[in-house]
Amino acid sequence: MRNVIDYQQIIADSIVEFKKGNGSNRLFKPVNYILDLGGKRLRPALLLMTNDLFGGDIDDAINCALAVEVFHNFTLLHDDIMDSAPIRRGSPTVHEKWGVNEAILSGDVMMVQAVQLMTQCPDRVLRKVLDIFHTTAVEVCVGQQMDMDFEKRNDVSIPEYIKMVELKTAVLLAGAMKIGAIIGGASDEDADRIYEFGRNLGISFQIMDDILDVYGDQDKFGKQVGGDIIENKKTFLMLKALEMTNGSGECTLNDWMEKEEFDPVVKVREVIKIYDSVNVRSSCEIEMNRYYETAMNNLNQLSLSEEKKAPLFSFSEALFNREQ
Amino acid sequence: MRNVIDYQQIIADSIVEFKKGNGSNRLFKPVNYILDLGGKRLRPALLLMTNDLFGGDIDDAINCALAVEVFHNFTLLHDDIMDSAPIRRGSPTVHEKWGVNEAILSGDVMMVQAVQLMTQCPDRVLRKVLDIFHTTAVEVCVGQQMDMDFEKRNDVSIPEYIKMVELKTAVLLAGAMKIGAIIGGASDEDADRIYEFGRNLGISFQIMDDILDVYGDQDKFGKQVGGDIIENKKTFLMLKALEMTNGSGECTLNDWMEKEEFDPVVKVREVIKIYDSVNVRSSCEIEMNRYYETAMNNLNQLSLSEEKKAPLFSFSEALFNREQ
Repeated sequence: MRNVIDYQQIIADSIVEFKKGNGSNRLFKPVNYILDLGGKRLRPALLLMTNDLFGGDIDDAINCALAVEVFHNFTLLHDDIMDSAPIRRGSPTVHEKWGVNEAILSGDVMMVQAVQLMTQCPDRVLRKVLDIFHTTAVEVCVGQQMDMDFEKRNDVSIPEYIKMVELKTAVLLAGAMKIGAIIGGASDEDADRIYEFGRNLGISFQIMDDILDVYGDQDKFGKQVGGDIIENKKTFLMLKALEMTNGSGECTLNDWMEKEEFDPVVKVREVIKIYDSVNVRSSCEIEMNRYYETAMNNLNQLSLSEEKKAPLFSFSEALFNREQ
Repeated sequence: MRNVIDYQQIIADSIVEFKKGNGSNRLFKPVNYILDLGGKRLRPALLLMTNDLFGGDIDDAINCALAVEVFHNFTLLHDDIMDSAPIRRGSPTVHEKWGVNEAILSGDVMMVQAVQLMTQCPDRVLRKVLDIFHTTAVEVCVGQQMDMDFEKRNDVSIPEYIKMVELKTAVLLAGAMKIGAIIGGASDEDADRIYEFGRNLGISFQIMDDILDVYGDQDKFGKQVGGDIIENKKTFLMLKALEMTNGSGECTLNDWMEKEEFDPVVKVREVIKIYDSVNVRSSCEIEMNRYYETAMNNLNQLSLSEEKKAPLFSFSEALFNREQ
């Protein structure tokens, strides 16, 4: 059994090959550029890992893994336009470098390339794989729509937030792992369990990401602490704190969110004070752990030997220990 | 054998069903909106017609026909953003009505829905159909990229223009007809001939469209005469006239193209004078007819009875007589 690093290397190599296949038309320059910006390639690595778990051949799954990575980068490319984000992984975003029109069009062609790669799996699973992929892709779009809608609303509930995270983030991880399992020959039951594992792990991971934005070690986390607070992002912490404070206190969360002029350092410090006053971190950790435990239960239910499941348990632990 | 109007009605009905299947999420409002703007639905109608020609069952082809129409409308939606077009078929464009972000995202989901619909064909042809569709979809993106690049260039050659038209417009018509033929059970040779027929007819049609913009009867054509001239669009006529005049004359085409302030009526009149001085209309008609004749030869080579081919001949004639 290979480990995640091996799979990541296999993906990196296949991206090099994929880029060589892209023609010289300038449409493909942004495609190759965003794929070169890196990232952890976790989704395709996990697709290969689940394929392997069920005894699949890596050659049957590699193009589907690449498809998931190309699709993921297409969503990043278009999301960056919608968010007017200037920087992605330390480099200018595609629309910043080439303009919005080029970014729309190169994103479009990446989406097509993703489905094209996804069809390169064995006939015996083609229809199932495509069904999962297309359903997932529609859900990711719906999740992005919800995220955009949330920016304009101030009555977002926590269940709505969880649904948005599930669609925008978790289902792609879940779908990638289910596709890997199906190519590997898993039963429908095991494929569904793998999907639930990915879905719950993905939601748990996003809640951790929200917590780390505020309470993470900046050096290890690699992002500005409190960035979400400064931007008024409706994170799990923010929504939970709003629910728990319910407008009480001298300077409420809503006041801070409405302020147009403020010192970012002061805003972050004061909002964290409110968070701490209701111990929001602990409430969020309880929720994060609940999804994590459900994910572990999903893993336990797989009809595989403990030895086979071990790499997925280790991977999950490593993912959630990144800060410690 | 049904005629084109029957097929158009079948498509219209299936669009109604498709829209019902779209959830209540606001992401789908622009999707339903652009599909409601109408259009001639020629691509899907021709897909159904070629399927029928080869003895196929309409139920096997209807979702693929719908896929082509959804894909075509996705390209219109994103092209309108790139062109900053305010109006599409007499109504506000999606980005004008809902904003650019909504337009990007609802276009994205339409692309996914198109491939999802395209998989709903019989297993025996699934892989072939998807291969044609994905290849075509990539080509359409490359064609749009070429079109955008041409706006910034003043050295576009006629072969480059033809290539752009082929990719941006003709291959989708050709691909749709080839998909219909394959679902209908055509041999590979006949499917290739149908593709070539669609490709040549599509190029010929675009040259006619360029000619009608200048020489068409405004009432019948339904567009402002000379719109392409006012916008400096690099049409077949413009490129041919540039080639033929080669900078001669007192007020050259290039001068008119560079003028930032002008009376549109005068510009159209003067440019047409230059066109007429070198008889550019006739040169363009020769080229248009050359592609048309090649398309007719492609049709003649089909291994079908004359009776079977008759509707495609009639359709082609009707398409090119719209002005007379």
